Parts: sequence; structure tokens; C-alpha cells
Amino acid sequence: MFTLKLNDTKLLNNTIGTIAEFITDATFNITNEGLKLVAMDPANISMVILTILPSAFTEYQVNEPSKITINLDGFRQALRRVRAGESLTLTHSSNKLNVTIKGSSTKRFSIPLLEDEQVERKVPELDFKVTIEMDSKEFRDFIDDASIVSDAVALKAAENLLLLTAGDTGRKVDIELKQGSDILVSMNIKEPASSIYSVEYMKKMAKAASFADSVKVNFSSDYPLRLDFKALNQAQMSFILAPRIENK
Amino acid sequence: MFTLKLNDTKLLNNTIGTIAEFITDATFNITNEGLKLVAMDPANISMVILTILPSAFTEYQVNEPSKITINLDGFRQALRRVRAGESLTLTHSSNKLNVTIKGSSTKRFSIPLLEDEQVERKVPELDFKVTIEMDSKEFRDFIDDASIVSDAVALKAAENLLLLTAGDTGRKVDIELKQGSDILVSMNIKEPASSIYSVEYMKKMAKAASFADSVKVNFSSDYPLRLDFKALNQAQMSFILAPRIENK
Amino acid sequence: MFTLKLNDTKLLNNTIGTIAEFITDATFNITNEGLKLVAMDPANISMVILTILPSAFTEYQVNEPSKITINLDGFRQALRRVRAGESLTLTHSSNKLNVTIKGSSTKRFSIPLLEDEQVERKVPELDFKVTIEMDSKEFRDFIDDASIVSDAVALKAAENLLLLTAGDTGRKVDIELKQGSDILVSMNIKEPASSIYSVEYMKKMAKAASFADSVKVNFSSDYPLRLDFKALNQAQMSFILAPRIENK
Repeated sequence: MFTLKLNDTKLLNNTIGTIAEFITDATFNITNEGLKLVAMDPANISMVILTILPSAFTEYQVNEPSKITINLDGFRQALRRVRAGESLTLTHSSNKLNVTIKGSSTKRFSIPLLEDEQVERKVPELDFKVTIEMDSKEFRDFIDDASIVSDAVALKAAENLLLLTAGDTGRKVDIELKQGSDILVSMNIKEPASSIYSVEYMKKMAKAASFADSVKVNFSSDYPLRLDFKALNQAQMSFILAPRIENK
Repeated sequence: MFTLKLNDTKLLNNTIGTIAEFITDATFNITNEGLKLVAMDPANISMVILTILPSAFTEYQVNEPSKITINLDGFRQALRRVRAGESLTLTHSSNKLNVTIKGSSTKRFSIPLLEDEQVERKVPELDFKVTIEMDSKEFRDFIDDASIVSDAVALKAAENLLLLTAGDTGRKVDIELKQGSDILVSMNIKEPASSIYSVEYMKKMAKAASFADSVKVNFSSDYPLRLDFKALNQAQMSFILAPRIENK
Repeated sequence: MFTLKLNDTKLLNNTIGTIAEFITDATFNITNEGLKLVAMDPANISMVILTILPSAFTEYQVNEPSKITINLDGFRQALRRVRAGESLTLTHSSNKLNVTIKGSSTKRFSIPLLEDEQVERKVPELDFKVTIEMDSKEFRDFIDDASIVSDAVALKAAENLLLLTAGDTGRKVDIELKQGSDILVSMNIKEPASSIYSVEYMKKMAKAASFADSVKVNFSSDYPLRLDFKALNQAQMSFILAPRIENK
């Protein structure tokens, strides 16, 4: 059983909204260490890893660890009803998640719990040759640029340079990001790497830019991509995406 | 014949827009007491009662009482063409309603009159056990909340408490409004009452919140609902809605 | 070969956006006198004539006159990716138009050149009895008003008066513009004239109001219409539209 209270629901709205791009029913683990979720999308191409820390809540009280599975759509609709100045409380009764919104009136949304049919997911340990931390909004824009001309984007890292390329015979987009650019936090390229990923998945992941200022882009040649979005003392949202195999 | 002039068309836009949610062709009675309409929706489940007072107009001149039937769509499109600083004049020629908009240029929209095929409607006299006056925007929000989970909403009034409930076995919304809340103007509960109404109809009615600050919600057990929206010295718009009979 | 640089892309966005309403592939002539286009729409009912002057560019360098044909959609999408503070450079390599956007990163969009299959268009010389210069946004609004009730608009000019009429047996719009109105720049009526044009085409042309403050409306009885939109020292966009023959 738990009681989680929030006075600002922006973070919850953003993270739940982003997860809903990948899955329809979500299983949350709620312990004293925070609210956690690890899920694969139905196509098994990507993994979503979310942690919301207890410090992101106004009140965080967990008597015993809980695992609840709910439909995200119903949860999002309830979240959208919160207005400025109202508080949100999540509690857990036998077969319901109760969302209570308090202002001049009291609104109570009950969302039925579903059976957890998913197997426990383990986050794979990966070894990356390239780690670039950059402005998250710029990253989202890059992916939007790439999505105009192609459904795949090539990431290439050489010494002091990140290159995103999309499209080929017809329209083409090249984006160059050099060491020293304003929008870089850090650029760590152990060895040159080159890999191709789905733009469609990256676009969904890039929505997490709405709650985090920067993103860590991790990859190696023909190897999965991992994106880490972090809001300090609040939440971390990571995504792992399988590479595309393509004739280059 | 009549000449009605307006320098601000917001009220007319709002009321005509709300009526258009219920009916396509409308019959207006224009007398020295104002512009009036009483109409039933095609399904005969709800009644709309509108009065716009002469004092809402900049100029209100009625030589003899007129009754005109027009298509609301054409009227709304003409109203939408008025811009800030322009005046609107409604006049009546043989078989047309003329809408004249004057600014730097003069625009004249002619809307053909239709034959009035509707029988005269009488507003039923009803006796309500519960009358609650509250903030109209909050009321609209409550109905929006309820519409998320169900097509019906239950209104329940007990001592010092109004409860709106929607949904049941699956997702559910409860909204509690207590005596003393900021958003209440008055709460008059002669005896406890409980009734169920269509959310779809209530949503259309709640659009009248755009011209009135408060709404009077009148009902009794398994009895029609009456909503009264009033803009002082300007207009009153009321709706009557038949209750739903449901297994409770 | 050419290098054209812009620090503000609004003008290019607006003009290319308007042309895209008429044609999908466009042939531009780029000479020391500016960037020019003359095109007919596929239905051969209207002509678009665009000139963007060298002075509209931050840098304008043309080594030899070039003629390039591109798909407008691809070009527009690249233009939309420019953000405040970024510069845009257009260059021309063997079979590509390169659009380079420079800010904290460098984005390069390559758009394939198409074969120019269009015959060279000559702008017809026309002799107009009526020339009215007016506020371009008001003109766009008039066309929007007319489009509500009909697919054709009649322009009539008599002494000191321009009349736009649309619709007939049912709904009807009349717009009267008199000598002396605020929204007129000049009104030159050599002889009364009356002609009918397609509202659909005029709506597309009126989009040019977004870059020019005024428009010259030129017509004669049952004769083509010519609209001239001009942004001083920047660009001129003109449209010629065949009259409609209708029973009046």
C-alpha cells in the first residue's frame, strides 16, 4: 500500500506521456527507492527504463513494496484533469489505483488494476565507444530534421565530430556537431563508430526532452543506442534501441 | 420588421453557437421584450430556451413582432466575419435576414428565411427539490471530467453535499462539492435527490458557460434537470434535460 | 553556379509557400537581377509570377545564370527547419540544391534537381480598365467572406465604388468599398467593369498578403484579373487569373 502526493504534476505527465508512445499497459514497481518501470515495446525493438525518485513527490509513503499494472490511457486522462493549485494523490486499494485531485472540489478517479502478464525485464549491460551529452531540445530537433527525409538515421562519430545523416539518393540531411559547440555538454569518443537506427523510435524517445535539459547519447558501431534523460533528484528515463542492419 | 444593432457580438456568437449544438434550423421570435427561442432537439430529449434582452443590443427597434426561421450554420458564418471595431446590424426583408457589418467597408450577408415547420413549444413548469448555483466554468469542467469515463452522470444531493459520479465497473470518477466551497454561490437542498443524465447533452449545454459566470443546477430524483445560465441585463439561456432510467 | 545567403527566411517561406498552392515542381531562374519564376497551374487557369530581388538577400553571388527545377515540398520542409538566429545558404552542385543552415550546429539539406519539362512562359500584356490598390489583409478577408457562400465572386467597379458579390438564390454576400475608405490606397476606374472569377484560386493568391502590405487589383469586363503584391526592394508576386464565363 502506498500514498504518493504531488503538488506539481508536470513531471508525471511528461514521463507517462512518453511511455504511452511505446506501451499501452504499464507495470510500475513502487518501493522506498521510488517508482520504477522497465518495459519492452510490443515489437521488442526498444526498451524503456523509468525511475521517479521519492524526492520528486511532495509526500512519498510506501508501507510495503507494490507492483501495479494499469492502462496508461486512463491514467493520462485523469492526470490531465489536474489544474494549477490542485494537488494529486495516488493511493492503492484492493483492485484500483485511486487518483484524488483536491482543489475547491474533490475529484476521485478510479482506474482498475490489470493482471501483470509481462515477464520481469532486465536492463542489459552495454559497453559504448561513444558517449555524447548534449542539449536535449537540440537533439529532438535533429531527429525531427532527419525524420523529414528518411525513416532511418545514421550516427557517425569521428574525432571531435558527431555526424547525423538521413536520406540518400533523393533528399538528404546532414547535421554536423563539432567539439566546442554551444549545445554540447561533453563529447567522449573512444573510437570512431557508425550505426543506423529507426527515426520513428528515436522521435518517440526524444519526447523525454520535455523534462530533462540534456541527453546522453551512447552508441558503438552496429550496436544498440542508449539515450539517458535525467532531471536531477527527480527522475531518469532511459531508452535502449536495437540498431538497424542496412546496406551502406 | 426590425433593426437590431450590436457593437459587440460575443454574446450573440456564444448563444447561437450553443444552440447550433442542438438544432440546425432555428425559429426566433423578435418582439419588444427581446429575441426569444424555444426549441426541442430532434431526439426530443432536451429543450433549449433563449432570451436575449433588448438591453443587450446597441439599438433595438421592433415595429411589429416578427418570427423568423433560419439555418444556424449560415448565420454563424456571417457572425464570425465581424471583427473588432465593426458593428453588426440585423434587418429583415421579405424573405431574407440581412446581416450588415460596417467598418472601413460594408459587408452584407443575406440569409434566406425558411418555413417554420415547428409547432410552438411551451416550457414545462417543474418543481425541483435541489437548486445549486455554482461557478459555470467549474460546472463545465465537472462534466468534462465525467465524460472521460462514461456517457451518463449521476447527480446526488445529500445534506450540504453535491456528488457527481460517472462510470462503474471499470474506470470511475467521483466529484464532491461541499457547502463552503469557493465555487458555490448557493446550495438549496430541500430533500436528498438522485438522478442520472446523459453526459453528451450536458456537455453541449455546458458550452453556455462561455457567456455566464454562474449556473443554476436544478433537479429532483428521477426527474428532469434544468440548467439556467444568466448574463445580467443581457441574456438567459436555460436547458431542460430528461432523466435517464437506469439500473442502479 | 550561385551562393545566396539569407539571415531572415520569412520572405522566402511566404513566397515559396504561396507558389506551392499552385504547382508542385518549380523552375527558378537565378541571374544577377534576382530569383525569378513564371509558372502556370496544371489546369492552365492561372499564372504565378515571382521576382525576389538581390537586395532581399544578405549575400547574393551569381557567377553564371542558373535555371533549376525542384520539388517545392522538399524545399519548404528544409526552410521550415531554420530557427531564429540561424543563417540559410543556398548553393548549387551538379544535381542538387544544397540548403545549409548554420547555428550551433550545421545542417545540410540536399534536394535533387529535376528535369525542367516546362515550356518557357511569357507573361501576357494586359490592358485594364480598373486598378484598385488596397490593404492586402482586407483583400484577403473579402475573399474569405465570399468563399463562405459561393465558389465564384463577381467584381464590379462603378464610379467611386468597388463591389464584390458572391452567391445568389440562397445565401449571398455583398461587400462595398467606397472612395475615401481607410483601406484604399488608390482607386482608378477608367470605365465601369464587371467580371466573375474563381474564389478558390483567389484564396490561394490572397496568401501573398502575408509578405506585402498592399495589393493592386486589376481587371476589366469579362477579362483576366491581375493581382500584384509588392514588398519594396524585396520581392514582387503577381497572379493572372482567367475570368469565369457565367450566365448573369
